[in-house]
Amino acid sequence: MSIYLCGSLDSSEIAAWLAALRDAMPAEQIDASLAGVDPAAVDVALVANPPPGSLKPLGGLKLIQSLWAGVDRLMADTSLPPEVPLARMVDGSMCAAMAETALWAVLSLHRGFFDYAALQRERRWQVLPQRRADEVSVAVLGLGELGHAVAQRLVGQGYRVHGWRRGGRPGAGPAGVAVHEGDEALAACLADGDIVVNLLPLTPDTRRLFDAATLARMKPGASLVNLARGAQVVEDDLLAALDAGHVARAVLDVFVQEPLPADHRFWHHPRVTVLPHAAALTDPRSAARVVAANVSALREGRPLAHLVDRMRGY
Amino acid sequence: MSIYLCGSLDSSEIAAWLAALRDAMPAEQIDASLAGVDPAAVDVALVANPPPGSLKPLGGLKLIQSLWAGVDRLMADTSLPPEVPLARMVDGSMCAAMAETALWAVLSLHRGFFDYAALQRERRWQVLPQRRADEVSVAVLGLGELGHAVAQRLVGQGYRVHGWRRGGRPGAGPAGVAVHEGDEALAACLADGDIVVNLLPLTPDTRRLFDAATLARMKPGASLVNLARGAQVVEDDLLAALDAGHVARAVLDVFVQEPLPADHRFWHHPRVTVLPHAAALTDPRSAARVVAANVSALREGRPLAHLVDRMRGY
Repeated sequence: MSIYLCGSLDSSEIAAWLAALRDAMPAEQIDASLAGVDPAAVDVALVANPPPGSLKPLGGLKLIQSLWAGVDRLMADTSLPPEVPLARMVDGSMCAAMAETALWAVLSLHRGFFDYAALQRERRWQVLPQRRADEVSVAVLGLGELGHAVAQRLVGQGYRVHGWRRGGRPGAGPAGVAVHEGDEALAACLADGDIVVNLLPLTPDTRRLFDAATLARMKPGASLVNLARGAQVVEDDLLAALDAGHVARAVLDVFVQEPLPADHRFWHHPRVTVLPHAAALTDPRSAARVVAANVSALREGRPLAHLVDRMRGY
Repeated sequence: MSIYLCGSLDSSEIAAWLAALRDAMPAEQIDASLAGVDPAAVDVALVANPPPGSLKPLGGLKLIQSLWAGVDRLMADTSLPPEVPLARMVDGSMCAAMAETALWAVLSLHRGFFDYAALQRERRWQVLPQRRADEVSVAVLGLGELGHAVAQRLVGQGYRVHGWRRGGRPGAGPAGVAVHEGDEALAACLADGDIVVNLLPLTPDTRRLFDAATLARMKPGASLVNLARGAQVVEDDLLAALDAGHVARAVLDVFVQEPLPADHRFWHHPRVTVLPHAAALTDPRSAARVVAANVSALREGRPLAHLVDRMRGY
């Protein structure tokens, strides 16, 4: 029995993860390399964007635990052993960080702080109209753990929050959030939202969801905040909607190609805010405790948490 | 008995205020000019930065109600009748707006969003370290209605909040906020705060409070958010502290001279955010209800609310 940490991490990230993981599971053997390790003895793989094929030598795997919340890239690896349980990272501190980023984007849009930044660059002193939070409608797309945390945080600040999910997951939404389900309700949510916050998982259904047709359904002058996956947005269509003024602003943490290419128009578009996929970083200290709980469930034969439904894709 | 609305307002502002005030007090006579009005019959003056001497003709005043929260400029008018009760505007929607602005500034500083904006201008994709909210200490100076609302909002987001007040006002602070009083505690609050949010009233004690000596007491690398009055900051000393790197960033809504002169260094300093005194605008719709409640208390002989202590200055 041993644990193999495997991913596209630099040496300081590996050191931080190993320290946190060993602290949370002092009795486990944990390695970040297969040198000197019997591959057949590895029964848990902790993965963070592993190079495709990384898990192939590991014949005795009983759990693949992602260190990130999104598993779309991981599942695109066709060599992933199909019968091994696969768990996502769901961590309170990651949910809190995502809620902070979403709230910052919503406050910035609602109160005109991006516009004030532009006015400052022109040295113009100009007061913009001020709306109350309860006059601003926010549509949160996706009500998984992250979307739930975001919707809850926004309701707490007084915003009118509508949550939308495709319908696959049972369960009520956060208190105070109007929850809508299914494809037809999506159009109504888009038409109503002054701000649309995307937190949907990347699946065949949501890939290229924000194309010209979907963007046209957004309320004129509304803004898009994408904190989920770049491939859900057709970037040229979004640029066209921004240039036409139909979409007022975009706050984008994720892109079709990351890092965003240096010559991409998003970098210098006056109404686009670019973040480097940093809306919610996994915090090794708290995530290691989540991993330890799942490893201990495996060892003791208890049910595993946060398992991915491979058919659904998240 | 009549009400006189008097201040430095443009015609659309006057129209908005008259509509809201007449809606909230349909039985009252309310004018925005003294033409055709008997000055001796005016018993309530509603003031918003009135030109000095504006209230002199009004011999029968029983209440001066400010439409703004800050009354320092009003009290500098030596022709203000000293015996007439003077009330500040304290309005829930203004407190909410101030809490939003403070939260936006704190989130921006905590999560590096000002730094990400600078990186975007350089087209640099670089992820910055992420701290949890409970690792960030915020000092809120001033615990009046606005400071209270700000401290409460920040505690609700998980920040470590220390509140400071000079000691004049009795009463506990918001739940979860460590409250400190008196001059000596100020130094400790400044030394501990990663972010210092100023919401103190402008009085002889707080004028030029943030001079070189006070700024030097701030934790190295901390940031200053000034949402109170420009005259509380010695602007050259702040620029020197920013240039030396001792103060990391400043978010400034108020200035010694407003509008901020076009050649002022704040406009283009890379680590200064300039807002045009817009942190919390008075919303005529809700403020008119606050005014109506005080006018009705006056008419019915009940105690007036939010009276200014002229000796203390707020």
